[in-house]
Amino acid sequence: MLAVFGHLNPDTDAISAAMVYARLLTRQGTEAQAYRLGEPNFETAYVLRELGLEAPPLLTELPAGSKVALVDHNESAQSLPGLSELDVTRVVDHHKLGDLTTTSTPYLRFEPVGCTGTILLALHREAGLSVDPQDAKLMLSAILSDTLHFRSPTTTPQDREAVAFLAPIAGVEDVEAYALAMFAAKSDLGDTPAETLLRMDYKVFPFGDAAQPQHWGLGVIETTNPAYVFGRQQELLTAMDQVKADDSLSGVLLSVVDILNETNRTLVLGATEAKVLREAFGVEAEGQVADLGARISRKKQIVPTLEKYFTPEA
Amino acid sequence: MLAVFGHLNPDTDAISAAMVYARLLTRQGTEAQAYRLGEPNFETAYVLRELGLEAPPLLTELPAGSKVALVDHNESAQSLPGLSELDVTRVVDHHKLGDLTTTSTPYLRFEPVGCTGTILLALHREAGLSVDPQDAKLMLSAILSDTLHFRSPTTTPQDREAVAFLAPIAGVEDVEAYALAMFAAKSDLGDTPAETLLRMDYKVFPFGDAAQPQHWGLGVIETTNPAYVFGRQQELLTAMDQVKADDSLSGVLLSVVDILNETNRTLVLGATEAKVLREAFGVEAEGQVADLGARISRKKQIVPTLEKYFTPEA
Repeated sequence: MLAVFGHLNPDTDAISAAMVYARLLTRQGTEAQAYRLGEPNFETAYVLRELGLEAPPLLTELPAGSKVALVDHNESAQSLPGLSELDVTRVVDHHKLGDLTTTSTPYLRFEPVGCTGTILLALHREAGLSVDPQDAKLMLSAILSDTLHFRSPTTTPQDREAVAFLAPIAGVEDVEAYALAMFAAKSDLGDTPAETLLRMDYKVFPFGDAAQPQHWGLGVIETTNPAYVFGRQQELLTAMDQVKADDSLSGVLLSVVDILNETNRTLVLGATEAKVLREAFGVEAEGQVADLGARISRKKQIVPTLEKYFTPEA
Repeated sequence: MLAVFGHLNPDTDAISAAMVYARLLTRQGTEAQAYRLGEPNFETAYVLRELGLEAPPLLTELPAGSKVALVDHNESAQSLPGLSELDVTRVVDHHKLGDLTTTSTPYLRFEPVGCTGTILLALHREAGLSVDPQDAKLMLSAILSDTLHFRSPTTTPQDREAVAFLAPIAGVEDVEAYALAMFAAKSDLGDTPAETLLRMDYKVFPFGDAAQPQHWGLGVIETTNPAYVFGRQQELLTAMDQVKADDSLSGVLLSVVDILNETNRTLVLGATEAKVLREAFGVEAEGQVADLGARISRKKQIVPTLEKYFTPEA
């Protein structure tokens, strides 16, 4: 049985891609089981509730040598602990290629599109397989989530085309209304502890010298209600400080992305982070907030800039 | 202009895949130019002569940051020097994933099939593009070469299906006769210098601790005339000794694969190589030749065993 999972701190794409890909592989004769590596966020919980589905089971470890398929990620820092001891036979992803290696030829399918769901739809079509309403809604939701309904610069024509194809199958008549309901669910953060908020959409990246990288924790809160998040600024900064110490990180940033206005204001923990934002982005923090303007995509607009900054020769 | 190339010491797949993929990308709107990283072997020269084609131009370096597409390989040790400074935007390959990393999302298409040509045919079909006779013969030749016309254990049903599809388009009525002509051309080694013979189908692999790997050079001579090769055994051993010293390798092996009888007798340079063959394969060298039986695939039957031997915990 092949275990299929997305990244730690799963988002809607990480969970729905695991569910859809496990089902596709099983239909194609490779028995597969979807897992998640963490709690679904409020947006994903909304999508699953709409579909009357349970989240896939939580996975925390696997015996060395187990066969796995990765979706929506490939770097060990974002995956199941001990990934290098597992047998990665398949990856479907839309991120840069990190530290993954394999011992035999894998099936790899990476495309520079906005969402894993867009690639999974292509896999169905290439195989001549129909898409049922449930899988259609999972892929549709993932694409709307990852591209912020086409607001993100990660959006490609393939993502738009996939949404146009999937919406009627999924029975979603008003795509914008559905996207806004997803974003509202995601923004309804209630009394979620500050550290949970920080870690909800949070990835650790190695930067600089590959042999001795420094690790940065980069969190994002995409919300239709940034005022709520900034109302908890002090709590969040305390949580960032704690995570930085606990995880021996060189820096921690938390970007608060206003979905509807397409802006990014980022919480800046201390002098290290302020220096990097100044030198890499030319942005001066005011108080503990840096206005990163329209840089709303961590993948396209934050990580590449930091990568260049920390590895100037690349 | 995207530069497309296969591995160093190119074989028929490395060169034909570069030619076919560059043409496919150009047809799809991405201007691309095929290159080779070394001299075509006698088999590839035969295929190109049959088609009345020149080999693509030789590439020895590119400026840092140049956009490239890799075919039929992905490890830096088998690629253009300075690969880590290039911008790898695409890879089509059927080998294990090595040390490749990228700075943005690449297009990756890896499949566990016998030949890159088989994957390239799938890309044409998925794009709804016709295959012209020239491209068909290039892909067909590559598949016959890589799979030794289905004799190799790397052969998959997709490779067989691709040959059945391509042969009529390529105008090849008797596939076995064409394959034998290719193999005969490859075996007509004449007065090729011993070092050239060694390096003709030769790859360097890092084994063991990823931070401080030891490098082994693994050459293969696939031939219908092994007696000719063993007639030059002393010369070849001298060349192996020289290459081992020049390239600071931990070991060098040269496997002489008898295509028609599907056997592998491997030249063993010294005590280090003999020890590894004994402990990894359970085979005792006699004189300086080890009988590796039916292990005719470096990829499937030699490299994985060495990998396990040098990294026992994996």
